[in-house]
Amino acid sequence: MLVKSTLEEFNQILGSSSPAPGGGSVAALSGALAANLVSMVCNLTIGKEEYKDSQALAKESLAKAQALASGLLARVDLDTQAFNGVMAAFKLPKSTEEEKLIRGEGIQAGYKEAVYSPLGIGMECLEVLRLARSLLGKFNTNALSDLGVAAQQALAGLEGGVMNVKINLPSIKDQEFTKEMRLKVAALLEEGRVLGNMVYQYVQENLG
Amino acid sequence: MLVKSTLEEFNQILGSSSPAPGGGSVAALSGALAANLVSMVCNLTIGKEEYKDSQALAKESLAKAQALASGLLARVDLDTQAFNGVMAAFKLPKSTEEEKLIRGEGIQAGYKEAVYSPLGIGMECLEVLRLARSLLGKFNTNALSDLGVAAQQALAGLEGGVMNVKINLPSIKDQEFTKEMRLKVAALLEEGRVLGNMVYQYVQENLG
Repeated sequence: MLVKSTLEEFNQILGSSSPAPGGGSVAALSGALAANLVSMVCNLTIGKEEYKDSQALAKESLAKAQALASGLLARVDLDTQAFNGVMAAFKLPKSTEEEKLIRGEGIQAGYKEAVYSPLGIGMECLEVLRLARSLLGKFNTNALSDLGVAAQQALAGLEGGVMNVKINLPSIKDQEFTKEMRLKVAALLEEGRVLGNMVYQYVQENLG
Repeated sequence: MLVKSTLEEFNQILGSSSPAPGGGSVAALSGALAANLVSMVCNLTIGKEEYKDSQALAKESLAKAQALASGLLARVDLDTQAFNGVMAAFKLPKSTEEEKLIRGEGIQAGYKEAVYSPLGIGMECLEVLRLARSLLGKFNTNALSDLGVAAQQALAGLEGGVMNVKINLPSIKDQEFTKEMRLKVAALLEEGRVLGNMVYQYVQENLG
């Protein structure tokens, strides 16, 4: 499992000539880092008298951020598995007509999985952005830049997830599916950029 | 060392109530991931007949990307050390006038280090963006989304580095230093955003 590798090892595997892990797993990791920075911001707010009006929000947000972090971290491995699934389907036998049919269906199913996987990354990164946005004005300002970095990493993960959806769509024959996915990712990006910008502006105005 | 921790462990430490590692180390990791994605893109281009005109560029870019990846990964630990340096200075004794003077100088030196550290992250992330930009039209297009994710992560690392510079500037008394740093980070951001946008547009146009 990739999540059991050290930062050094993961970086080394990433930079190698193997196409997986690639951008999809990095997008998932970026989202997990963002969610954990939100967790840290909540942890630094909980129990502080100065932020007594934010205690319920900080605790609730911490639980949400931890769940998102856990899900996104799991996606580091899942996305690489989805990519490998497509590669495995391409290696299926294709001597007979029946084999060709099965292989073709396997490839199509593999590509759909390779779209659902980064779509999930994008959706969870958007949740992290919603969470970061909901904390504005209600968190420990010592962690101002941490919340700012969280939003940047979540948005980068969202953009990365969407790119990984889009690169696989031209290989999918089911036009209804591809049309639906294009609409979905456009909506994700639109909301994510607005939220990312709101957090960014808040952080810039308060950085001094 | 943080780079010897697993992705799971690093994420757990990040999300805890300890303020370090925080956004600075995440920005450095984001840059390292970006540089390694560029390495992968180069590795997937090297030795491919289809990209025979790009072989020299790919090999040269691979060496540059590997050096940047290594430097940025080291900065994951260095940035946390810089933050801890400020915290340590605050804990120096302050009973006598001499102690107060020494403590004050220690704090100022600590803050300057806590500015140089993320500034270095930002500068190296900008180098990754320059490298990604230089590969446009000259790399294995199977890795199109990987180069796109690399640029997003490098830009997020750059933005994160700059936020971590800015949050420490109000604590620094040396006005010449703070003025110089503000000019430096503004220039970094300006170039980084232009380069990030160039890579992004190229990827979008070719994703299909």
